[in-house]
Amino acid sequence: MPSFRSTSASNSITFRLRLDNIPGTLAKAMSAIGEAGGNIGAIDIVRVEQNKLIRDITVNTGGDDHIEEITHVLNGIEGVDVMHWSDQTFIMHLGGKLDIRSKVPLKSRDQLAMAYTPGVARVCMAIHHAPDKVYKLTIKGNTVAVVSDGTAVLGLGDIGPEAAMPVMEGKAQLFKEFAGVNAFPICLATKDVDEIVETVKRLAPTFGGINLEDISAPRCFEIERRLKEELDIPVFHDDQHGTAVVMAAGIINALKIVNKKPQDLKVVMLGIGAAGTACTNMLIEMGVTNIIGADRSGAIHRERTDLTKEKMDYALRTNPHLFSGSIHEILQDADVFIGLSAPDQITVEDLKKMAPNPIVFAMANPDPEIKPELAYPHVAVMATGRSDYPNQINNVLCFPGLFKGVLECRAKDINMEMKMAAAYAIAASISDEELYPSYIIPSVFDKRVATKVAEAVKNAAYASGAARRNKK
Amino acid sequence: MPSFRSTSASNSITFRLRLDNIPGTLAKAMSAIGEAGGNIGAIDIVRVEQNKLIRDITVNTGGDDHIEEITHVLNGIEGVDVMHWSDQTFIMHLGGKLDIRSKVPLKSRDQLAMAYTPGVARVCMAIHHAPDKVYKLTIKGNTVAVVSDGTAVLGLGDIGPEAAMPVMEGKAQLFKEFAGVNAFPICLATKDVDEIVETVKRLAPTFGGINLEDISAPRCFEIERRLKEELDIPVFHDDQHGTAVVMAAGIINALKIVNKKPQDLKVVMLGIGAAGTACTNMLIEMGVTNIIGADRSGAIHRERTDLTKEKMDYALRTNPHLFSGSIHEILQDADVFIGLSAPDQITVEDLKKMAPNPIVFAMANPDPEIKPELAYPHVAVMATGRSDYPNQINNVLCFPGLFKGVLECRAKDINMEMKMAAAYAIAASISDEELYPSYIIPSVFDKRVATKVAEAVKNAAYASGAARRNKK
Repeated sequence: MPSFRSTSASNSITFRLRLDNIPGTLAKAMSAIGEAGGNIGAIDIVRVEQNKLIRDITVNTGGDDHIEEITHVLNGIEGVDVMHWSDQTFIMHLGGKLDIRSKVPLKSRDQLAMAYTPGVARVCMAIHHAPDKVYKLTIKGNTVAVVSDGTAVLGLGDIGPEAAMPVMEGKAQLFKEFAGVNAFPICLATKDVDEIVETVKRLAPTFGGINLEDISAPRCFEIERRLKEELDIPVFHDDQHGTAVVMAAGIINALKIVNKKPQDLKVVMLGIGAAGTACTNMLIEMGVTNIIGADRSGAIHRERTDLTKEKMDYALRTNPHLFSGSIHEILQDADVFIGLSAPDQITVEDLKKMAPNPIVFAMANPDPEIKPELAYPHVAVMATGRSDYPNQINNVLCFPGLFKGVLECRAKDINMEMKMAAAYAIAASISDEELYPSYIIPSVFDKRVATKVAEAVKNAAYASGAARRNKK
Repeated sequence: MPSFRSTSASNSITFRLRLDNIPGTLAKAMSAIGEAGGNIGAIDIVRVEQNKLIRDITVNTGGDDHIEEITHVLNGIEGVDVMHWSDQTFIMHLGGKLDIRSKVPLKSRDQLAMAYTPGVARVCMAIHHAPDKVYKLTIKGNTVAVVSDGTAVLGLGDIGPEAAMPVMEGKAQLFKEFAGVNAFPICLATKDVDEIVETVKRLAPTFGGINLEDISAPRCFEIERRLKEELDIPVFHDDQHGTAVVMAAGIINALKIVNKKPQDLKVVMLGIGAAGTACTNMLIEMGVTNIIGADRSGAIHRERTDLTKEKMDYALRTNPHLFSGSIHEILQDADVFIGLSAPDQITVEDLKKMAPNPIVFAMANPDPEIKPELAYPHVAVMATGRSDYPNQINNVLCFPGLFKGVLECRAKDINMEMKMAAAYAIAASISDEELYPSYIIPSVFDKRVATKVAEAVKNAAYASGAARRNKK
């Protein structure tokens, strides 16, 4: 009986096999891979040896154990020998994922004389005499630093700046691919808040904006706050605000489906780290008043005596009715559950206690607060952080377009008006006719989204006084 | 009578003209531009209006005054109207000169799952568990930071980090164009030596090497020395060592032409700032013992009482015979003059006093220590820093190939052996048969040079113990 496993292109493996050149051998190997739960993609011939065929078979697998299992099964077949296997994800990373290149050819003396000495000197002096020209005559006007100290990388924790590089490179790829914005990874060899702040300030001449990434809480709050105060270029901690913007877009559309209003909602927010705090702020801005945050000890309220400074700040802005109790208790009659915590924190029983037509955003990665398969019968709208379920809350819907808009109008800041504008633009990229419980969030590959977000953010920047470039 | 002016592509201007649509009008305009000394390139039709033709004429000019003169002359012709003009060098700089892009397409979920989450997490953890893999799995292995504080940009002085950006971008273009190396401009908002050192150290996780650029002396010495000591990636101040390497290559070949040996030479070095000091060190390494440095007050010798610490260090390593006197006096019987100072510092009379077959490297930019036209009759070999005379001492012959070699073998340092290897490789790219007084330095467009330099530097790195990558 074939085994069923969750396989993924992110675990795509190319097995190099030496096969007896006898009809049926390849078929046996393929059957065995299928039986073992591997998902076969491309099959190539590498070369022919005496009585042998060397073939590459690319298989989506479920990870290390699964690769071992498939290797074992293949080696057990007569006439089949696994020579070695290679991991497509690692192959894609060889040499890094970014290319920095000249926008113009430098093949002649004339081109060199314009791009470099002596012509470049006149451009330098033009900037020296009118510093604002740096935005027009250098990459600054379209370039973002993706800054991390590697302390909270994905769900992997404090793995250090070198190990954070692949994520920051990936982020930079997305900036260019989705919005045409240059981005460069800056992974810092310090975890000290003061040092990070002063280092980023010293780097500012090169960049038009700073995207902070994967910096652990609560340090990320102070770093962002101080950089926003002390720099004249916009600063954005994507883990907080990117998540919050896309969540808000999802809530805006979900409320249309269930026909509820922000001011009438009871919202329960499980996990109030960096992202949870930012999500709460967005919901307050949308007009939600009754938000109850929760951590491992249950509801956050201002009478708790075990709260950190950040959590007490949170308590003072939320939970006006001083709900207390476990997450299971406070979900009673809640309209919305938002999870940014850990796998399997809530149950079907909890969903049944919620108000009619509950909205559940279970965004813990990679495994949500409740399995979607269990939740679907009991919810009106569900979203997760995963790409393999409908309604993925994915920051890539926000940050490329947001920074594109910010850079185009030379915004000095990314304020709440601009973030709200981004959320409404993402939400509005699905028309009321298209809107459906399993389609409240556009696809990450919907290229219109970044353009719409950029336009909306720009308009909000002009309206709120954050834009510095004269409107054309 | 046509006026003769030195024109250049670095002052290439496109004039947009509205011309009467009458035969002969364009010819009149072109004649006028020629008479005014403009060098006409492309001519394009933009559009036709009633009885008028709109044309773009691109002209190499001699700079601002010349542009004004040509505009004036054109406007004086009946039927010709200069609508506006645009500067090709500034147009080339619009939006900056660098493009950062993904090396792989991100068009499908599978590609996204490999380049970014969830696949990227496995790559991060591989680096976390084996830190050396950062060289292979990220851009670090092929990426250099071009770091400046904007204090000594070209010959423009302390113009600040923003105004330095066009030069650093140009440098980054050259790295990729000539050697396939990624380079990124880092212009720092601090001039403090300690702050620059600590900032670059914090940036190190992202980069495989540091190219320091246009940092004023004597600060550049301490910054480079400390970074070399404290970082495990190679650090290279190009203004010092790049110049020295290419100068050394030129001297190696010039000595072949005049058939002299390093140990027999009397060398006079005018200007002992950053580059002059590095050139002196290379010459000493080549076996030259009798080097006399000179500043505005004349020969540097250890009995002078007005010397800075740096100049006293210099005096202690040079001028063993304690020559004193003005530059004109110490050139008596000199075999080699090397200038890194200012325009028109030496005369034809000085050249006549030199030993037979004098070698003159007058590298002050843009105007050399003596005009080549004056010097040629009295020298055996002459080199300058300019592209419009033979034998241009141009750093681009060194730094791209040098860093390519350094990165390929993961050298921890760029030592004297490696710099000498680069110099000999540049020199050897001209065969003995090709060697000629006006061809001792290869063209910057000779693509073989970077490859040869990289190979030579790599071999020297392995031989001297600086390479960290196992030889294949």
